Amino acid sequence: MSELGPAEPWAVRETALSGDALSTSALRHTESIFALANGHIGLRGNLDEGPCGMPGTFLNSLHERRDLEYPEAGYGFPERTETVVDAPNGKPIVLTVDDERFDLRTGTVRRHERCLDLRAGTLHRDVEWVSESGAAIRVRSTRVVSFPFPAVAAIRYEVEALDRPVRIRIESDLIANEEQPDQRDDPRASATLHSPLRLLSHSPDVLLHRTRRSGIEVASAVAHAGPPVFTSSEPDRIRAVVSTTLAPGEPLRLEKFLAYAWGVQTPVDIALAARDEAVRWGFDELLARQREYLDEFWETADVELDGDPEVQQGVRFGLFHVLQAGAQAGPHPIAAKGLTGNGYDGHVLWDTETFVLPVLTYTHPACVGLALRWRHATLGAARERARELRLAGAAYPWRTISGAECSGYWPAGTAALHVNADIAAAVLRYVAASGDEEFLREAGAEILVETARLWCRVTHADDEGVHHIDGVTGPDEYTALVDDNVFTNLMAQHNLLGAASVAERLGIAGVTAEEIGAWRAAARRLFVPYAPRRGVHEQHSGFTRLQEWDFDATKDDDYPLMLNFPYLDLYRRQVVKQADLVLAMMLRGDAFTPEEKRRNFVYYEARTVRDSSLSAPAQAVLAAETGHLRLAYDYLAEAALLDLRSGGEASGDGLHIAACAGVWIALVQGFGGLRDHGGRLSFAPRLPSCLPRLSFCLRWRDSRLRVTVTGGEVTYAVTGADLTFEHYGSPVTVAGGDTVTIPLDPVEELRAPPSPRPPERRG
Amino acid sequence: MSELGPAEPWAVRETALSGDALSTSALRHTESIFALANGHIGLRGNLDEGPCGMPGTFLNSLHERRDLEYPEAGYGFPERTETVVDAPNGKPIVLTVDDERFDLRTGTVRRHERCLDLRAGTLHRDVEWVSESGAAIRVRSTRVVSFPFPAVAAIRYEVEALDRPVRIRIESDLIANEEQPDQRDDPRASATLHSPLRLLSHSPDVLLHRTRRSGIEVASAVAHAGPPVFTSSEPDRIRAVVSTTLAPGEPLRLEKFLAYAWGVQTPVDIALAARDEAVRWGFDELLARQREYLDEFWETADVELDGDPEVQQGVRFGLFHVLQAGAQAGPHPIAAKGLTGNGYDGHVLWDTETFVLPVLTYTHPACVGLALRWRHATLGAARERARELRLAGAAYPWRTISGAECSGYWPAGTAALHVNADIAAAVLRYVAASGDEEFLREAGAEILVETARLWCRVTHADDEGVHHIDGVTGPDEYTALVDDNVFTNLMAQHNLLGAASVAERLGIAGVTAEEIGAWRAAARRLFVPYAPRRGVHEQHSGFTRLQEWDFDATKDDDYPLMLNFPYLDLYRRQVVKQADLVLAMMLRGDAFTPEEKRRNFVYYEARTVRDSSLSAPAQAVLAAETGHLRLAYDYLAEAALLDLRSGGEASGDGLHIAACAGVWIALVQGFGGLRDHGGRLSFAPRLPSCLPRLSFCLRWRDSRLRVTVTGGEVTYAVTGADLTFEHYGSPVTVAGGDTVTIPLDPVEELRAPPSPRPPERRG
Repeated sequence: MSELGPAEPWAVRETALSGDALSTSALRHTESIFALANGHIGLRGNLDEGPCGMPGTFLNSLHERRDLEYPEAGYGFPERTETVVDAPNGKPIVLTVDDERFDLRTGTVRRHERCLDLRAGTLHRDVEWVSESGAAIRVRSTRVVSFPFPAVAAIRYEVEALDRPVRIRIESDLIANEEQPDQRDDPRASATLHSPLRLLSHSPDVLLHRTRRSGIEVASAVAHAGPPVFTSSEPDRIRAVVSTTLAPGEPLRLEKFLAYAWGVQTPVDIALAARDEAVRWGFDELLARQREYLDEFWETADVELDGDPEVQQGVRFGLFHVLQAGAQAGPHPIAAKGLTGNGYDGHVLWDTETFVLPVLTYTHPACVGLALRWRHATLGAARERARELRLAGAAYPWRTISGAECSGYWPAGTAALHVNADIAAAVLRYVAASGDEEFLREAGAEILVETARLWCRVTHADDEGVHHIDGVTGPDEYTALVDDNVFTNLMAQHNLLGAASVAERLGIAGVTAEEIGAWRAAARRLFVPYAPRRGVHEQHSGFTRLQEWDFDATKDDDYPLMLNFPYLDLYRRQVVKQADLVLAMMLRGDAFTPEEKRRNFVYYEARTVRDSSLSAPAQAVLAAETGHLRLAYDYLAEAALLDLRSGGEASGDGLHIAACAGVWIALVQGFGGLRDHGGRLSFAPRLPSCLPRLSFCLRWRDSRLRVTVTGGEVTYAVTGADLTFEHYGSPVTVAGGDTVTIPLDPVEELRAPPSPRPPERRG
Repeated sequence: MSELGPAEPWAVRETALSGDALSTSALRHTESIFALANGHIGLRGNLDEGPCGMPGTFLNSLHERRDLEYPEAGYGFPERTETVVDAPNGKPIVLTVDDERFDLRTGTVRRHERCLDLRAGTLHRDVEWVSESGAAIRVRSTRVVSFPFPAVAAIRYEVEALDRPVRIRIESDLIANEEQPDQRDDPRASATLHSPLRLLSHSPDVLLHRTRRSGIEVASAVAHAGPPVFTSSEPDRIRAVVSTTLAPGEPLRLEKFLAYAWGVQTPVDIALAARDEAVRWGFDELLARQREYLDEFWETADVELDGDPEVQQGVRFGLFHVLQAGAQAGPHPIAAKGLTGNGYDGHVLWDTETFVLPVLTYTHPACVGLALRWRHATLGAARERARELRLAGAAYPWRTISGAECSGYWPAGTAALHVNADIAAAVLRYVAASGDEEFLREAGAEILVETARLWCRVTHADDEGVHHIDGVTGPDEYTALVDDNVFTNLMAQHNLLGAASVAERLGIAGVTAEEIGAWRAAARRLFVPYAPRRGVHEQHSGFTRLQEWDFDATKDDDYPLMLNFPYLDLYRRQVVKQADLVLAMMLRGDAFTPEEKRRNFVYYEARTVRDSSLSAPAQAVLAAETGHLRLAYDYLAEAALLDLRSGGEASGDGLHIAACAGVWIALVQGFGGLRDHGGRLSFAPRLPSCLPRLSFCLRWRDSRLRVTVTGGEVTYAVTGADLTFEHYGSPVTVAGGDTVTIPLDPVEELRAPPSPRPPERRG
């Protein structure tokens, strides 16, 4: 069995690997956990020698196109989709010991350890193995995917004879078009494409391929250092071979440098140059620079908490993977699974702007501007899509790699127009927090203007002059094609008013005062449905009038409901897949009174089944704000343990990067009470009794702020520029280098309201 | 060019065929018009010698299964669909004249005529043709698909040398797995299946095939009479050859008898027996019995009108094709295209019960019981589907051949639950009109009970105890997944109350008084949304609050809107594809006051684009009822001329059988004012000034009624049993053999209300 050791503050360690843990599905899970990436290239945590659950060498946006077939097509249904494809895999290193292949499924494993080091940014492995014929060896490998040198990954591989001399042979491969395992029968899985890369040339230094339909050229270069190797190439494979006899105490150390270039003019030259530079640096230097990069990251991003080592590990693991997904992603997008797997076909969805970018905005803002510039670079496709949909401005895709809409089920795809407002909100948040006016002028403003035009077209006034947005789908995918989804309307309002304010301030060619006036007018009278009889906001018009779900008749294995009930049944009932109105209360908390938040939270808790990993973080934040602190902690823990300890099959296709970000959100926005409504920073810290101390850092323009909360007080420590923010609604200014401590009123911990699927108790 | 001659009362005659009329698309259209069928087998009106637009030999329900692929599948999406396939084609007769092949595209066509004789039930053809080498011949052929002998079709083929002796060779084929032309790129077209039949055996008498996946065996037998023929067989073909020299004035007459058997235990024996019997009868006897059958049909079904020969022809053409679709359909369904083409994949939809069966109920009731027994025979599949959908009772498919749901776009398929109430309404109507209690006990009651159970499960009460049906799609396909569609709710109410009354009267095992009480309770408080501000009923809750469609910005070639706008845009606006609330006012006219009907009709006229051929008949009926008599006539004429004179490409896949029925509906329900609410027959005749006289017949239990309306009076003539009905709300009883004449009040002809797409003026 696979066994993650006790939670460590800065590492994820596997201390055994045998039996069921070597099954394909178990391997897929640990490969995701142990994936290394830098936003540009990603290597799943496969064992060097196999077996593997899913090979997984991902180059951001390297994809193939596929035709979509519909039983009954409709106007505007996308005709093509995009699927991430595997780049040539440089991970395989096959070791033969006295003519017996090193494989954990044979011989005797004396010791096995894999360790993801969150500060070093490496995956380290250490195995002692005895072959069937009794040859004992120790194998160590260290993998790094370089943050500062994004085209490069490297592996150090060490073999040592333990008891007696052994003959060894090492075959170190770079291999393209590997056989892919079959995919799970799940709508969230990826399509399988066989042999997606067409070979253009091969040499012992570099392979050059081109994807067949999308026409992306990719060069994959490799070099080895250490003992003399014999290197040869054949189509789709470069192989380096070392054969020797090792005496005990004389370890052999082989270093392998990989470099990739794709989607550029001269990929072979660029890949070879990157490889050569990596070789010149050497492996140790790569490690040193990796640690340097991460030291800086953790200095301004780390979250500390007392009393729960697993959640402590979870939040750092989550932040590490968020960084791995986004650090060097620009000019490409940040996909829902980052570069840890091919789930969702490698597509980017609204998760990125709604969950991932907010965390990066406050912890690693440099990559946020680039991620949003990618959205700007795809404005042409979004404008074209808006024209096709007979709308105005830009209609961003629900899911995509290149910028083209790839959603094959429009009621839960194209109809989710809120993605446009989500992107606009990410622009406004990033600009407010970073002050990056250059980005705003060059890219952000145009995104805001074009999305505002979309909303202005979609919005219409009724006989009383109240404005409505009809027939769209909100975040909750158990309702669809609804009128006046509160989340959508409030986010659209934010988009329209934000665009108006930016357009007015900057003066943008082609945007008239009349147009700005129309945006404001549309925004100000947007309807927010409320059900007076039940005293709550309606997720959409009429929601609270729908039939209730029969939770008593719903069995545990009926979840996720979407796999066991038709949309026909789900859509017409008060059953919520994921935070929708609750997410609106998080992102547009300024639009609700505290009493409304409390009543709404209780109402929707009773109807939310959390069949999406995006749900728990928002529920944690609103649980905390409404005084359900232990419940908030339970939701926090669920998010923190999702991929690491409970994800199982669902994490095998790749990690839930938005949920990784959600751990930070649950802690910092939930218990820290961070909000940024209207571009103003505010805090309202409140800890549950089970959490004695929470400390987190963030950046705001030229300031860095560390917030440390205990049951009795909060300390705000600022470095850099002076910083003004709100503490429980009152302005506080802290000078750079200063620290302010403010006592906290005790908070009453409310009991969790009824829920059909409460999180596991932990708080 | 193809040219239909002037409208004749009892025939459809084509008087020329050359140039563009020989294009594939033009041929497809005339092949549909000239199709012969008897509900059991159908032959499209292909030229004997070719070319052909679509071959088309259909055996009711002979189909193949295909897998459905979805870009993003969901629970309960059908995994397979069914597609009608061509049976072996016995129509081809190729003639060679002095070594030159007879073909209208070569040589000189001196004369060409094709004539569909609506009283004889034959397709007759008469051509004079001169070959390139100057050989002049006359070719005549007569085709019949026998109503009284449903397994049999026959062709008489005559060739005559006109000027000088000619050598002729005739090849008469029965051919399987012909090459199919590619389909149009239109969601309403059929899928193309190549070589759908696997050969089991062949002989000069009979071919035996089996469909590959659906496993239906089909035997196709042929025999020739007349001159000696040499008959041989090879895989997929039987060929009879005649070679001779004809002297002028000595015509050669070849007769070809075809017989089919499929889906039965010993198809070869049955097909051969039928063929042999047909040969014993001989061609003349087939013709005589065909006319006898049709004489009886027309005697009790004919509609006469004065002053408009084209509409007169249209209503008889429509009735003839309705008969051809339904006469011998049992135990199979009546498909949307009948047996005239493969459009909609040969599926049966709600059209049958809503438009076709009402006409047959009053004109040819014998086949209605059989058609509904087919629904009863598929109750097992409908129950299984209800279980799969987590519903109760039975959920009939939106489209099917075998009874399994084949709809690949669930928002406009599975979600249209009203099909269940439409079937129940057809049961109730047929039982009321025919008094067929045996059918009710054996089949109808169970359909009513199981559909009532479905509605009882779907319906739910709100906080005030008002019942709702949410998240369904009504007849209008430009809205979907709506709450409280009036049509659906009123039809469900009719279903629930009808089932309750039948269950109570008959006493049905397993149906308790409590259950019956629950049906009545659900029915009585079903919500019917009304918009007081606009003074109209809402097609569904909130409809009148939706954004209006911008008709000023919509160009002529933007129609049909579904091919040029996304559902995203259509669903959220007040634009109606086809009569929905207006159809509710026709079928459930008892639920509206006259004033409500008038206001509703005007409101929905302004928003209905009639992108469905199902729309005009219902609009005609309500236009007539609300006093818009000339508009009603315009809609009548549109329906009457649709397939015959304006259908074009849309009719090439087969005729719109429901629209064929709609001509009768527009006349008899519109101007005759026939209604059958609550199982009571009533009339309210009213003619527009352009229609001086209308006369129609119908059956009601043991009575036959002829109604003759002029501007000033109406005459009710009854034969058989005495008959009681309502005339403008007052009971009238006419004894068998008697005639009653009642003067009519003059009716004010209102001007047509505004419409974005008014029908062509004719009234």
